[in-house]
Amino acid sequence: MKLATYRDGTADGCLHIVSRDLRRAVPASGIAASLIDALQRWDAVRPALAALYDRLNDGTEALAAAFDPARCAAPLPRSPQWLDGSAFLNHGDLMQKAFNQSPIPQFETVPVMYQGASDDFLGPHDDVPLPSEADGIDFEGEFGVVVGPVPMAATPEQAAAALRLVVQINDWSLRTLGAHEVRTGFGFLQAKPSTAFAPVAVTPDELGEAWRDHRVQMPLHIDWNGARFGEPHGGQMNFSFADLVAHGARTRRLSAGTIVGSGTVSNRERSAGSACIAERRVIEIIDQGAPTTGFMAFGDRVRMQAKFEDGRDGPFGVIDQRVVKAG
Amino acid sequence: MKLATYRDGTADGCLHIVSRDLRRAVPASGIAASLIDALQRWDAVRPALAALYDRLNDGTEALAAAFDPARCAAPLPRSPQWLDGSAFLNHGDLMQKAFNQSPIPQFETVPVMYQGASDDFLGPHDDVPLPSEADGIDFEGEFGVVVGPVPMAATPEQAAAALRLVVQINDWSLRTLGAHEVRTGFGFLQAKPSTAFAPVAVTPDELGEAWRDHRVQMPLHIDWNGARFGEPHGGQMNFSFADLVAHGARTRRLSAGTIVGSGTVSNRERSAGSACIAERRVIEIIDQGAPTTGFMAFGDRVRMQAKFEDGRDGPFGVIDQRVVKAG
Repeated sequence: MKLATYRDGTADGCLHIVSRDLRRAVPASGIAASLIDALQRWDAVRPALAALYDRLNDGTEALAAAFDPARCAAPLPRSPQWLDGSAFLNHGDLMQKAFNQSPIPQFETVPVMYQGASDDFLGPHDDVPLPSEADGIDFEGEFGVVVGPVPMAATPEQAAAALRLVVQINDWSLRTLGAHEVRTGFGFLQAKPSTAFAPVAVTPDELGEAWRDHRVQMPLHIDWNGARFGEPHGGQMNFSFADLVAHGARTRRLSAGTIVGSGTVSNRERSAGSACIAERRVIEIIDQGAPTTGFMAFGDRVRMQAKFEDGRDGPFGVIDQRVVKAG
Repeated sequence: MKLATYRDGTADGCLHIVSRDLRRAVPASGIAASLIDALQRWDAVRPALAALYDRLNDGTEALAAAFDPARCAAPLPRSPQWLDGSAFLNHGDLMQKAFNQSPIPQFETVPVMYQGASDDFLGPHDDVPLPSEADGIDFEGEFGVVVGPVPMAATPEQAAAALRLVVQINDWSLRTLGAHEVRTGFGFLQAKPSTAFAPVAVTPDELGEAWRDHRVQMPLHIDWNGARFGEPHGGQMNFSFADLVAHGARTRRLSAGTIVGSGTVSNRERSAGSACIAERRVIEIIDQGAPTTGFMAFGDRVRMQAKFEDGRDGPFGVIDQRVVKAG
């Protein structure tokens, strides 16, 4: 099942079901007002949503119209929590190597994760207002999951049972601020402005064979100002989404609608490129002694789209955003 | 004006106005369904809330009943964001000295702040379910503010204009997990389970002379299992709440209802005691070479109450909680 949220002036937007081929959509507001409402009553509303999805795909749904990603907010315009891991250890290894950082303790056995703002997410085509180019504006291509209720101290198996939806994410980052915040030990705050999402959230079955081991087994194609920047593969996650959700729930309950992210997709193979500028820069530092690629300027665009391994377009739609001066 | 939230089965609870002497309360749901609703329409609803407060204090409000803190959730049972600073630098200085940590860069000029979970706050008398005593269970007595909308990159002056309410907080902490998370650079996540709040949120004018320089100029009395643990004074904040809110808004908008905390109250004078066990332990390490005070056990209680400098009870009511084994 594929789900999207059209803006309607409310904080949570209007839930829509999107056809398998991403061409048609129909309001689902007769079943659940919003995606967060649906997630809070998932077992009760899922059959009706699935029936609507079937009618949409069959061409028998009278209210179907063309799917318009430009009308989309993030699938969840706000959510109870947004917890972002860093599950591709190749990325962290490169960062440590370039900056001669002391290794993160238990880096290979305990995920690292920060809590981000979850009250003001960006839609897939929203401009990204930021105060200063000097902050080191960067994108981060990621995958994520949306969960149902997860009890405190859930096992990875319990966490796996709570996985509801898979999403594609651009975790906007400000590297100059982040370099400072990492050194404080308090973690990322100013370094993480509003996060953006591809228009379509999908149930894991939509991924078919590309959902294995609680990982998204797809390359994420990333273009910066129209030039290919990377297409790293999501399968190289060192922790699965079940592991990450269990980590997040260790000492707290997760409310339905909590989003847990993979961290920037990163592959050992240099040919895959990178999902963020910071990683390209650390590779330049390692290879050449200094970075040659700058961060983003106002007016720059980034486009992100997951693809199946056979080259077909992925199920999430496209993130395509422009950075602009705030205020 | 004094405000509290009674549990009513909804996520945001039922807004009540509480009398100046904390003895009487009246539902305000005819004006605003919940405190978050009121904060989203503050200028529109404030006159009616203030009129109700006047009738309650005059004894002319027919629907008034005894105020029952046992029925209270946190004033905001959930909020858009919860951003907690560490604005009493004495606390950080002690932690660094005890553990020979390298100094936090710009520690005296740039606040440190983490983002905590804001979807599942605890009420003033709620038990605190936690998975393991081995995690190093600790309390943290704090003050905080609730803001209206704050634009990205707001100045401290703009932040000051957005301050709506003052609150008293117990920022539950798990020190064993925190020691690891600080070293990762990603900051606190598992170390910060659900945060608790005193029952009454107040407009700054309720503090009278105890609200100066955007600080709460009151001692916070803390008892652990019935024995006085500390009564540090809130006036020694090195950053004001206006500074902290501006720091939080540097690269993001803050939605109405965002809560910004002071971090654990801490004084240079040893006679004031501490607002958390971790600080007493680092003083023991500095003075004696090793800590002698352990962390909390299941069944332990902590009580927190701000007082005016002349000894009168503060306006926030009492936090009195027991730690229990989760599950």
